[in-house]
Amino acid sequence: MYTTFQFQELIDRALNEDIGTGDLSTRILPEEVTGLAKLYAKQKGVVAGLWLVEQVFQRVDSRICSHKLLKDGDEVNVGEVVLELSGPLSSILQGERTALNFLQHLSGIATATKRAVDQVAGLSVSIVDTRKTLPGWRALQKYAVRVGGGKNHRFGLYDAVLLKDNHLAAVGSLTEAVQRIKDQVGHMTKIEVECETIEQVQEAVNCGVDVIMLDNMDLGEMREAVQYIDRRAIVEASGGMGEERLREVAETGIDLISIGALTHSVQALDFSLDLGDIKATTRASWERGI
Amino acid sequence: MYTTFQFQELIDRALNEDIGTGDLSTRILPEEVTGLAKLYAKQKGVVAGLWLVEQVFQRVDSRICSHKLLKDGDEVNVGEVVLELSGPLSSILQGERTALNFLQHLSGIATATKRAVDQVAGLSVSIVDTRKTLPGWRALQKYAVRVGGGKNHRFGLYDAVLLKDNHLAAVGSLTEAVQRIKDQVGHMTKIEVECETIEQVQEAVNCGVDVIMLDNMDLGEMREAVQYIDRRAIVEASGGMGEERLREVAETGIDLISIGALTHSVQALDFSLDLGDIKATTRASWERGI
Amino acid sequence: MYTTFQFQELIDRALNEDIGTGDLSTRILPEEVTGLAKLYAKQKGVVAGLWLVEQVFQRVDSRICSHKLLKDGDEVNVGEVVLELSGPLSSILQGERTALNFLQHLSGIATATKRAVDQVAGLSVSIVDTRKTLPGWRALQKYAVRVGGGKNHRFGLYDAVLLKDNHLAAVGSLTEAVQRIKDQVGHMTKIEVECETIEQVQEAVNCGVDVIMLDNMDLGEMREAVQYIDRRAIVEASGGMGEERLREVAETGIDLISIGALTHSVQALDFSLDLGDIKATTRASWERGI
Amino acid sequence: MYTTFQFQELIDRALNEDIGTGDLSTRILPEEVTGLAKLYAKQKGVVAGLWLVEQVFQRVDSRICSHKLLKDGDEVNVGEVVLELSGPLSSILQGERTALNFLQHLSGIATATKRAVDQVAGLSVSIVDTRKTLPGWRALQKYAVRVGGGKNHRFGLYDAVLLKDNHLAAVGSLTEAVQRIKDQVGHMTKIEVECETIEQVQEAVNCGVDVIMLDNMDLGEMREAVQYIDRRAIVEASGGMGEERLREVAETGIDLISIGALTHSVQALDFSLDLGDIKATTRASWERGI
Amino acid sequence: MYTTFQFQELIDRALNEDIGTGDLSTRILPEEVTGLAKLYAKQKGVVAGLWLVEQVFQRVDSRICSHKLLKDGDEVNVGEVVLELSGPLSSILQGERTALNFLQHLSGIATATKRAVDQVAGLSVSIVDTRKTLPGWRALQKYAVRVGGGKNHRFGLYDAVLLKDNHLAAVGSLTEAVQRIKDQVGHMTKIEVECETIEQVQEAVNCGVDVIMLDNMDLGEMREAVQYIDRRAIVEASGGMGEERLREVAETGIDLISIGALTHSVQALDFSLDLGDIKATTRASWERGI
Amino acid sequence: MYTTFQFQELIDRALNEDIGTGDLSTRILPEEVTGLAKLYAKQKGVVAGLWLVEQVFQRVDSRICSHKLLKDGDEVNVGEVVLELSGPLSSILQGERTALNFLQHLSGIATATKRAVDQVAGLSVSIVDTRKTLPGWRALQKYAVRVGGGKNHRFGLYDAVLLKDNHLAAVGSLTEAVQRIKDQVGHMTKIEVECETIEQVQEAVNCGVDVIMLDNMDLGEMREAVQYIDRRAIVEASGGMGEERLREVAETGIDLISIGALTHSVQALDFSLDLGDIKATTRASWERGI
Repeated sequence: MYTTFQFQELIDRALNEDIGTGDLSTRILPEEVTGLAKLYAKQKGVVAGLWLVEQVFQRVDSRICSHKLLKDGDEVNVGEVVLELSGPLSSILQGERTALNFLQHLSGIATATKRAVDQVAGLSVSIVDTRKTLPGWRALQKYAVRVGGGKNHRFGLYDAVLLKDNHLAAVGSLTEAVQRIKDQVGHMTKIEVECETIEQVQEAVNCGVDVIMLDNMDLGEMREAVQYIDRRAIVEASGGMGEERLREVAETGIDLISIGALTHSVQALDFSLDLGDIKATTRASWERGI
Repeated sequence: MYTTFQFQELIDRALNEDIGTGDLSTRILPEEVTGLAKLYAKQKGVVAGLWLVEQVFQRVDSRICSHKLLKDGDEVNVGEVVLELSGPLSSILQGERTALNFLQHLSGIATATKRAVDQVAGLSVSIVDTRKTLPGWRALQKYAVRVGGGKNHRFGLYDAVLLKDNHLAAVGSLTEAVQRIKDQVGHMTKIEVECETIEQVQEAVNCGVDVIMLDNMDLGEMREAVQYIDRRAIVEASGGMGEERLREVAETGIDLISIGALTHSVQALDFSLDLGDIKATTRASWERGI
Repeated sequence: MYTTFQFQELIDRALNEDIGTGDLSTRILPEEVTGLAKLYAKQKGVVAGLWLVEQVFQRVDSRICSHKLLKDGDEVNVGEVVLELSGPLSSILQGERTALNFLQHLSGIATATKRAVDQVAGLSVSIVDTRKTLPGWRALQKYAVRVGGGKNHRFGLYDAVLLKDNHLAAVGSLTEAVQRIKDQVGHMTKIEVECETIEQVQEAVNCGVDVIMLDNMDLGEMREAVQYIDRRAIVEASGGMGEERLREVAETGIDLISIGALTHSVQALDFSLDLGDIKATTRASWERGI
Repeated sequence: MYTTFQFQELIDRALNEDIGTGDLSTRILPEEVTGLAKLYAKQKGVVAGLWLVEQVFQRVDSRICSHKLLKDGDEVNVGEVVLELSGPLSSILQGERTALNFLQHLSGIATATKRAVDQVAGLSVSIVDTRKTLPGWRALQKYAVRVGGGKNHRFGLYDAVLLKDNHLAAVGSLTEAVQRIKDQVGHMTKIEVECETIEQVQEAVNCGVDVIMLDNMDLGEMREAVQYIDRRAIVEASGGMGEERLREVAETGIDLISIGALTHSVQALDFSLDLGDIKATTRASWERGI
Repeated sequence: MYTTFQFQELIDRALNEDIGTGDLSTRILPEEVTGLAKLYAKQKGVVAGLWLVEQVFQRVDSRICSHKLLKDGDEVNVGEVVLELSGPLSSILQGERTALNFLQHLSGIATATKRAVDQVAGLSVSIVDTRKTLPGWRALQKYAVRVGGGKNHRFGLYDAVLLKDNHLAAVGSLTEAVQRIKDQVGHMTKIEVECETIEQVQEAVNCGVDVIMLDNMDLGEMREAVQYIDRRAIVEASGGMGEERLREVAETGIDLISIGALTHSVQALDFSLDLGDIKATTRASWERGI
Repeated sequence: MYTTFQFQELIDRALNEDIGTGDLSTRILPEEVTGLAKLYAKQKGVVAGLWLVEQVFQRVDSRICSHKLLKDGDEVNVGEVVLELSGPLSSILQGERTALNFLQHLSGIATATKRAVDQVAGLSVSIVDTRKTLPGWRALQKYAVRVGGGKNHRFGLYDAVLLKDNHLAAVGSLTEAVQRIKDQVGHMTKIEVECETIEQVQEAVNCGVDVIMLDNMDLGEMREAVQYIDRRAIVEASGGMGEERLREVAETGIDLISIGALTHSVQALDFSLDLGDIKATTRASWERGI
């Protein structure tokens, strides 16, 4: 999905902040010592970011070979190996922490997204992300949301319009704001409006927006809004969407639930790297390669 | 503590990923419309990163003026305003999300650190971070740990030595590994060794390391290790240091507790931005300025 | 519309490729010699990029003051001054060519766009650009199209879907291709399909796309397509849209005409810079400033 | 002529502005689908930039193989294939537009240069470019001029001296300006002076400059200047050098004609990419490779 | 001579390699403590790079004010103050080493160049540099040569031609090599040939090159070459040009002596920074400013 | 020790400043001409930086093959070949100067360090570097010091504390300064204090610092300090450590001697590149490869 060069800058930045002027600890190992290592899960969840792990090790030392046992989106169990490595030991150890830091964060997002998606299983409701992402990480975090079964909201201020309370307040009229934006954007741009009341919902429908966000409404308001809108716009529920509420919100008939916590409050999924034994078959092919 | 240019690259990257080819939504506002805004907390916690917030808005538009009502390290209550802004409205709205994304993450770290530090209050034990950080964010995350009252462990592989299980396994002998590293590093470098057993602790003490990490030991083992070490090395407790265990671990006599979750599993602290009324005195001075 | 930092990299690149290791010719001027200069049009057209001109001179030397007499989107006549400058002469001369290179290209685009827009005056048809842009220049070229009165098509592969002949050929079925993409993208993404025949148009309408591009159709086919579509999708005419055809194409009832030549074959609008006399009032305020 | 890394930044910038956070449309294709494609001309002209096309596809996906059927500088006819590609279809489609954007612009320059060179065939006159180039593109545009049979004027302000009207006006005396610059530059730097009158030409010859530019002179003045100069300096004709005038200007005896339009007003040469059949022999060798 | 942005990248790189994740030592100082400092010479020599010193401190903290007491090219005596500073003490201390590292290196070059220039005083011979420079530093090192009274040879492979022994060997004939290069380059490019024998000198003169380099010739050969060339080309003496030989080489009648050691073996000129008293008048104006 | 990507930026910068818009001189060679070359020493010394030489040529043209005959740290004699090359001649010539510029500088440092280390042979004293390095070159210069047998002092302001005279003056009390810094830094940070008098040495010992620098003390003072310190801290001698003094300083019992000149005043070690014959065995294996 991504070309290899697009995250090289972030990978380099990550390696530079860990390795800096050189790893001191691996000076205990002669450069020519090679070995085997396996990267395994210490928690159950959904894996995301294995291709980044491979890129990290490649960038540290192009002589490192890696072999994925799972692929992004797969569920992983405690103790399950996701990737095996072979190559210069000091290089593997230099890349270890950076690779794990990428993997644990993205897998944490995919795992949480999967849990949310499972909550609304069977209903035609999508779980979507927000712009509450970590600076420098938006594309990756949104990728992990997709890996976990979610969909992406807009990526930024540039690829779709969302008129929020502050915009409406600044213009003074929802209808006026929508009218102005329709004059300003091209035909490939969707327009969403944030509504806090049924009156705003009605106004939004009447000026023909593509998507209506119901902001912090209770279940009753949501049902009323859905009924009024009557498929004339896509309906997004937003605000305080804790896991425990997802099912009942989904059952109001809305189309999407957006959850900021998927990306702003990520619980890392624990992975670890161990030197030593790897599967015999993999070992055989590697020993030929090294 | 940081010179202004050092995080410009991350700020630019953050703004670029949000604004990209241009904010569509603020096209509804004439460029010359100016206004006031306040940034306030929606949760109680410790503030960290206000200087980044100011840099973000400066970078979006150098005509934006800001005024901090709190400073990094201060505790903030629900609804409390931390920063007031004045300037072109469309510029304020373009910087809003990026600024909040920085602030919510760093304040989340400072808040969690403060909670951990409070757990061990009265004991001479420091709470320290790890290298389990978000790629691209190490210096900022470690800054937030300090803001919350914690101390920093080493920043990377380059500024101190930590021989971990994988290093020891690769060399085959703890004593041999320590001896090799002493030959390799200069006089300004501290040496720490990760120990999983009392036998390793004894070996580490005897070859004269600066710091000993007790990895995943139970309370009894920690007490025994502390007693054996007898101030001949600094003692760090590590592994599964959940908040509920901190007090009892601290009471074993160790010097430091390192907690990966401070930086790898951050709960964002919620902040929001509202246009509109700000304090009269601030308003007065701004109106003169604009 | 754009924050000042977003084009700094291109400006620096431009200045570096012109100034490189240092301007040799201005060594004839002592650094302290200041003077006045005016930048004027040598052809009639629409001005675009004046803010870039100002940024270029600022970047060369922050002591240069500039004063715009026109603003982007204004029409300019032969000999009309668009900007006056004051400051160190050697700095003004170092920035001259780079500033003019930006201005002549963007104004050329705005001027050609304006001519196309004028052709369809009175009809509810928009002139839009394409992705046939100069590498490194997409945002700026699309900005100039807007300045000239055009609208922007999508900015890239990332902000909207356009299934072209090659996509359809690769999948084998238009309906299948549209179905797949609807499963893949979020609710903020519009979907357009390129159609070369009326049969494709019918198929596209029936699977519910947002926009239909009529590729290289003759006027009769266009009219037939418009009639069939009957406002169930936005209709774009594309392919060989020379100026002489615009009016008759517009009269077929399509909504948009996209023109690659607006950005891939730009005729520069000629501007020049002269040292010397500037308007008395401007001179007065500058002499105070210097 | 160029090392592969020197344009990587521009290529990355180009791909980033087209692909951004990821191509949405090719999500319809499974990543493992491979195929063949050919890149062919839709207009007659001179090809320039094929190596850039190859670099673009390599950067998108290193698994793409390409095979050039022509080389830079060759003339191409309508429908003639210049390059064949094989590899993952979604990667080929992601690189398509960017590759074409490079090729169409550079080939447009080479084609126009060739036309100008042909005008002066048989005379010892060179066609040269100017500094009226597109910011970020100078080296590439000047390369395309060479591909078309032209020669390069100086690359920037740093590699040669050209004293223009503004420089002379600032110093007040041509002789004084030349004297000053001779004191300032090293022995590897050539010095040219722009002259608008015969008197200036005489003054320039007498102070011993290397090159004299005749700016906007008519044919009679040019002949007079050439006669006076009498090979004591190289003579460049400049200003309003439309194609129709080139022959008669060349016949005045000047050495060079410089044409800004070669790079500031480029007519793209149309190319297109089609999936599908490629030559049997090429196909055979590729099928072995994939 | 240089625009302020051109060396920002090197300055940032320099500050980053010194300050990295933050200066630890200045944590002993409250951020609000301001003070005065003076930068003075500990050796006699020629000052070069003061503007870089100012940029370094500006980049660390824009609140630092500086005041130059000398300018580039001035001679400085032991103990003489070259620059006074005022501002936040911790910022001044953070910039100290980086600023000194720039100044000591460039002043070392200027000082050595001045010594060489003085050796040939009264003769019409220039001292010039070479391409034996420190990677990343070419423009700055060549600037320092000019500050010391020397002239610049070409800046790189791109701004002039120098055919060396390896080029001639590769082509097999000096005349053939010169002929080929004349066909390849434009009219603004000078051509120099390296000659090791009188026969080569004669061949070079006869094919009309601009400059002839006499490589490692003895004084007798140089005189013979000068006599043969008889002002038909500029003559450069090169190879083993130690200070003690400069006068006698200059007296052979050659035009230039190029010295690699000026930039490849630089003896730093010692400077230091002291906190504390500065001149009363400067202090007064600063105290107003802070 | 270093991952390949960490110096790519400096290598690119170096190649760009030499090659710029393209090497003019090698236009005399058809691109397909390949050949052999050897890089040899013209002075006796210690080699450092061969891996950078290989990276430089790889970056210019990935078709160039190289073969090291020595490795970093080896001593080289006059005329001894250190590296053989094979590949496109024009590419080898384009990389020549940049490669040599890296090698001559780093080998110069290693050679001087080796000389200093030899002076104190047999004593348990280390030769260490300082922060008086060339901006942009710190990690490489410190690497060359290690290659020459020296040890590294801290890398920057971020990886260890060194309280110097200016810090002590700013705080007013050595004890107070040490106390403050101990509160501020983590457990992995060593603390050194610069002392100019025995009284300061005593104070430093008493507040428990890790390292004491004796700044510009005479031999008697050094002996007295060593006796007082009595192994309670590491002792560094600093200031004016010319080669002739090293042995007698080392014999005072100090642990380290730091020498700024190792990196601030580097005498390049001369190397050269010749086309032509290389060893028969190497030639054979290359000819197979090309």
